[in-house]
Amino acid sequence: MGIITILGAGAMGSGLCTPVSKAGWVVRLWGTWLDDHLLDACEAGKPHPRTQIPLAKGVKLFRSNDLQNALEGADVVVMSVASVGVPKVTEMALEGISKAKALWLTSKGFCPDEKGKIQLLPEAIRTLAKQKGIQIPPIVAIAGPVKANECADGKPTATIFGCKDIEVSRKYAGEARTEVYCIEATDDEIGVEICAPMKNVYAIALGIADGLEKGTGFPHHNLKAATFSRAIKEMSLLGQALGARMETAFGLPGVGDLEVTGLSGRNKVYGVRIGRGENAKDALKEMDRLEQTVEGVPAAGLAAKLVEQSAPQLKEELTLLKAVNEILAGTTRPVVNVLSEAVLPKKP
Amino acid sequence: MGIITILGAGAMGSGLCTPVSKAGWVVRLWGTWLDDHLLDACEAGKPHPRTQIPLAKGVKLFRSNDLQNALEGADVVVMSVASVGVPKVTEMALEGISKAKALWLTSKGFCPDEKGKIQLLPEAIRTLAKQKGIQIPPIVAIAGPVKANECADGKPTATIFGCKDIEVSRKYAGEARTEVYCIEATDDEIGVEICAPMKNVYAIALGIADGLEKGTGFPHHNLKAATFSRAIKEMSLLGQALGARMETAFGLPGVGDLEVTGLSGRNKVYGVRIGRGENAKDALKEMDRLEQTVEGVPAAGLAAKLVEQSAPQLKEELTLLKAVNEILAGTTRPVVNVLSEAVLPKKP
Repeated sequence: MGIITILGAGAMGSGLCTPVSKAGWVVRLWGTWLDDHLLDACEAGKPHPRTQIPLAKGVKLFRSNDLQNALEGADVVVMSVASVGVPKVTEMALEGISKAKALWLTSKGFCPDEKGKIQLLPEAIRTLAKQKGIQIPPIVAIAGPVKANECADGKPTATIFGCKDIEVSRKYAGEARTEVYCIEATDDEIGVEICAPMKNVYAIALGIADGLEKGTGFPHHNLKAATFSRAIKEMSLLGQALGARMETAFGLPGVGDLEVTGLSGRNKVYGVRIGRGENAKDALKEMDRLEQTVEGVPAAGLAAKLVEQSAPQLKEELTLLKAVNEILAGTTRPVVNVLSEAVLPKKP
Repeated sequence: MGIITILGAGAMGSGLCTPVSKAGWVVRLWGTWLDDHLLDACEAGKPHPRTQIPLAKGVKLFRSNDLQNALEGADVVVMSVASVGVPKVTEMALEGISKAKALWLTSKGFCPDEKGKIQLLPEAIRTLAKQKGIQIPPIVAIAGPVKANECADGKPTATIFGCKDIEVSRKYAGEARTEVYCIEATDDEIGVEICAPMKNVYAIALGIADGLEKGTGFPHHNLKAATFSRAIKEMSLLGQALGARMETAFGLPGVGDLEVTGLSGRNKVYGVRIGRGENAKDALKEMDRLEQTVEGVPAAGLAAKLVEQSAPQLKEELTLLKAVNEILAGTTRPVVNVLSEAVLPKKP
């Protein structure tokens, strides 16, 4: 297969080592300046602190000051750092990326440029490269219902590779596939990139519906299901407005990833707190105190800006996105009402 | 609004009384010969035994031998009996139905005719009426993520009315709507009718994925999410082959209803047993002993027949339906393998 260099030794970066090693790639894992303790654990033969699973055998580790060696001769570079770190790491790795045949992207999020314009990550990376006058290879956006610990542990996992050039998607979907890590190929980079951060926003809403059982004394399964259905519709609408295919949200990146994100994880846990009756701002402080980053919170605000800038016709139509932002802002209305209004069908 | 007569005093029939009463209809609830104990409880002012919620005030109850009075002057008749009872109750009520302005249908399932041809319920009802030479009014298929107990209790609920004549869907979606029971209108009767029984089949598969956590010692969230995504795709494919719109499965009748059905209920519970390691046939005997009917089991077999008869081109393509039937037949292969093979993407 060749050499694959994964940038970012967190849960997803380290988890991805398992299938690509198995598929026959030579795997290098580079840790950022925040990842030293993660690499320490792996070098000591302990489970990775984020996934609790030992790193795949044979993976070569590189410290943050050793980026150029990590990139030397890489056929594929994988960007797996937290979305806020993407611009900086891209800049640092740009030369290595330019020599690779593809840049894969598991980082997820919205990225404001210097003027505050919200970009999807592949666009942000391409813009940065252009500014530096450097040509980069095709980007393959990776998403779908993948909990990193299960991926690391070789549990059955479905994912999707999205590259504007479908032949590139297909090539790598074939070459990274194992018996248990199975990959769909699509040309819908935008659809894949929209669903990934939006599912974090909507997982908060699903958590709220779950939390209402404790908050009100009664389960709200019908409301949760209506919320799920509405979330998928809004992902599809937003995607379409930005050039994605309608159906991408109805497959692994939307339906699949929202399902897995709604099963557990910090966004859901945070939503449950709100549904149980905590004020959104207080609950967030508590999550911060517990060092539990809730990715859906900044994503909700950035998504609202993205809509305003690039799909203003949807501003009123994305009622669930609006409701989540109202709740996050600490609405004084009962959250069950805010959520119901947003997701129940309007008068026909 | 007028008079609405609900045939079948089980969970859904009694639950529907709450919103339609609230919306201003005069509501009559007729119990079949199997429902006497349910009506007894309601008459005694106790909660309905199936929903644990008291019947809406003002609903007039009719015993099985009083069908003609129940139907006298009804503007709308609602068929809410178990799917196996639909042909018989249709026959008994045909004259009353013919005088109504619409027949609503909350019963869900596949219905084999005398020659073994699998029909959707609206088609079965229309065929029966035609055989008797009786004209019946438009049928409104009702589905979506509605747990009857929450509907009965006035909890926020989204549902969908599907009638081939969209104006009829819209009229009743407007007239049955309340603040908390909100209705989408569609002309896709077939799409709505396909999703309703199929979600019971696929909820077994979701239960299996849940049960694997106990069965194998590890959560299988990625596999569950891939299963969910695959189920939605198969509902859409099967619907389209039979004349439904692609997108119906992506909304309330598919995504929404599968979500709520996968949260709890007998199909899911049965699946969990299998995932934990029980043999499917033994587990079904145990469910029978506990008087827990698992609707997805007969539906899986009937769905396979329906595919063979009416969409044979999909026989190999509906891999999850096939896998559920293989598991229900008591496969000797590990269920995690059967499920993974069925839902993970094929080689690109």
